Amino acid sequence: MLIKERLFTPGPVPLPPQVIKALGQQIIHHRTPEFTNAFLQVREKLQKLLKTKRDVLMFASSGTGAMEASIVNFFSEEDTVLVINAGKFGQRWREIAKRYNLKVIDYEIPWGKTYDKEKLIEILGKYPQIKGILVQQSETSTTTYHDVKFLAEKANEMLEDCLIVVDGITSVGVYEVYPEEVGIDILVTGSQKALMLPPGLSILYYSEKAEKRLDTSNLPKYYFDVKAESKKQAKGQTAYTPAINLILALNESLNLILDEGLENLAKRHEVMAKATREAVQELGLKLLSESPANSATGVYAPEGINADDLRKQLLKIGFRVAGGQDHLKGKIFRIAHMGYFDFMDMIQVIAGLEIALQKIGYPVEFGKAVSKAQEIIREVL
Amino acid sequence: MLIKERLFTPGPVPLPPQVIKALGQQIIHHRTPEFTNAFLQVREKLQKLLKTKRDVLMFASSGTGAMEASIVNFFSEEDTVLVINAGKFGQRWREIAKRYNLKVIDYEIPWGKTYDKEKLIEILGKYPQIKGILVQQSETSTTTYHDVKFLAEKANEMLEDCLIVVDGITSVGVYEVYPEEVGIDILVTGSQKALMLPPGLSILYYSEKAEKRLDTSNLPKYYFDVKAESKKQAKGQTAYTPAINLILALNESLNLILDEGLENLAKRHEVMAKATREAVQELGLKLLSESPANSATGVYAPEGINADDLRKQLLKIGFRVAGGQDHLKGKIFRIAHMGYFDFMDMIQVIAGLEIALQKIGYPVEFGKAVSKAQEIIREVL
Repeated sequence: MLIKERLFTPGPVPLPPQVIKALGQQIIHHRTPEFTNAFLQVREKLQKLLKTKRDVLMFASSGTGAMEASIVNFFSEEDTVLVINAGKFGQRWREIAKRYNLKVIDYEIPWGKTYDKEKLIEILGKYPQIKGILVQQSETSTTTYHDVKFLAEKANEMLEDCLIVVDGITSVGVYEVYPEEVGIDILVTGSQKALMLPPGLSILYYSEKAEKRLDTSNLPKYYFDVKAESKKQAKGQTAYTPAINLILALNESLNLILDEGLENLAKRHEVMAKATREAVQELGLKLLSESPANSATGVYAPEGINADDLRKQLLKIGFRVAGGQDHLKGKIFRIAHMGYFDFMDMIQVIAGLEIALQKIGYPVEFGKAVSKAQEIIREVL
Repeated sequence: MLIKERLFTPGPVPLPPQVIKALGQQIIHHRTPEFTNAFLQVREKLQKLLKTKRDVLMFASSGTGAMEASIVNFFSEEDTVLVINAGKFGQRWREIAKRYNLKVIDYEIPWGKTYDKEKLIEILGKYPQIKGILVQQSETSTTTYHDVKFLAEKANEMLEDCLIVVDGITSVGVYEVYPEEVGIDILVTGSQKALMLPPGLSILYYSEKAEKRLDTSNLPKYYFDVKAESKKQAKGQTAYTPAINLILALNESLNLILDEGLENLAKRHEVMAKATREAVQELGLKLLSESPANSATGVYAPEGINADDLRKQLLKIGFRVAGGQDHLKGKIFRIAHMGYFDFMDMIQVIAGLEIALQKIGYPVEFGKAVSKAQEIIREVL
């Protein structure tokens, strides 16, 4: 019988119809006034999204490309960086930094936890030579939120020349992320998360303070050359062939985002996340994260049940959710709620979770978690 | 905040992605082998859908066009027809028949009820000159199912030359409808219901018995000329320009239907309908129909609540359901479950109904109706 497959994975996420329509267009050439015009519109909308008048560059790459751009343009060999390493993507910061011969202070944090504020202050006190702090605002692998504002404040207070480098891949479009207010120097994000596009487009913001490093950085770069792109993109062109249809589609998804309003956008994600968290706890399940993010919710499978078996049951009734990575494989599952989701989507996946759990042998009282989520979303409806 | 609008109306219904993709193609010319090939594929799939080897014609029109074709090709002036008139679409049969100077026996039935078997036998006994019985298998305005098989049996038994003319617009693709097994002589349906397409394409089957009338019918026709279309369509062409993209899209939606299997298709609709009915009754609401169809469920709004106000609340949280027509306006609402819906869609709309009812002041225990529906669908998951 027909079962629709619904994506509740933390990237890619479902595409809005407006985006699908834009993607389904005949291609236009990028060296045309038509494309330039659209590109400049997108640039302006990205500036609105981040409340900045500065460069917001686009690369034809996944988010990891923009992470690499954050390193190779703004650091030099042997620079010391602190990595807030609390999951799979924290590890990625460390790997990229090492690949370019930076000195890495690896602040390893157990998966599911965020950094400890006192411990952070201790590290900053001990290593005044730190030139950058690399962090995820939302660590997708553990669905954990890291407080970037506190990091920026402390770094500013205690260090001489430190850039706050933020992977905002699953936070931009989920939270209100305004780098100039928070003190973020470099912010990267990707298309296939809360920006509601297919993968293949990454975005990079950099502060005035970061800009000064462009002339001194001695790391090799070509495709991800921020200076080269900056000149071109201000005029509505790119150094290399752009991801044309993704940029045209981004023009549509940014309309959706700006029309909703950034405050509403953040509130919606907050409520969807809260409804999901409280609903799963109502079923007696345990959250993975002690500092849960609003982008996705990681949940431990019940004692004695393999999370991947549970995921298979969910898929059979219509829901694709993500599993755990590395040592969390088979132990947890992750339900996304970023981007093109609304309240009733969360109700639906929770109702599905009740059924899947019951099918797999876990005692469930149908409607219990659903009604909890209904109560929470009812407050804002 | 982002609220998705979900169509739960009894036509148009949501389109599957495969259909959207087919519709979004560049047009092809219809006088080409490419189109002819696709047309013949569709014709063969329609024959599979109805389990017949006979003509299944397509018209570029809404379902009403095929209803008219059923009259003008198979009846003559002053022929007597019996109309099973139990709602808005029963009235339509009567109007079309009258427009062409047929003599109409109007068996009017209160909205929400089906015909009475004894009363039917009485009418057939009284009017042996009846040349046709016009009926809806599923009367959409009242969400009522009429037993066509019994009609056909009795007519066959009691009348000399009577055609059973069935509006299957909201029954084909919902039930297993095999005209040759049931004794249906003329069956019409439309694209925008369980066939999961936009409006604009209608379909007509006629039996061997009906075919004999083609030569004697003296009613005027041109666009809906079955003989002219029959010759052309057998060869993969149409008398007039066909609805090209709808036919190509129908090729896709029929794949979905035949891949699911006709028995599964009917079972899914049966379970979705049952879940909806029992859930709304769990909330203390009353069904409109005494013989409810599996295509849509009509429900009375609670005492003192205007159904259209309730529908507005539903729309605010993401669900577009239909209202009542004529004297039922403001009194009932109708939730569709035909075509591209699956079990979890029904859970979702029921959860939304709980919230909408509570918002409008009707006491609701969240999760009560949802859990009822979960129990029902759990049986087949």
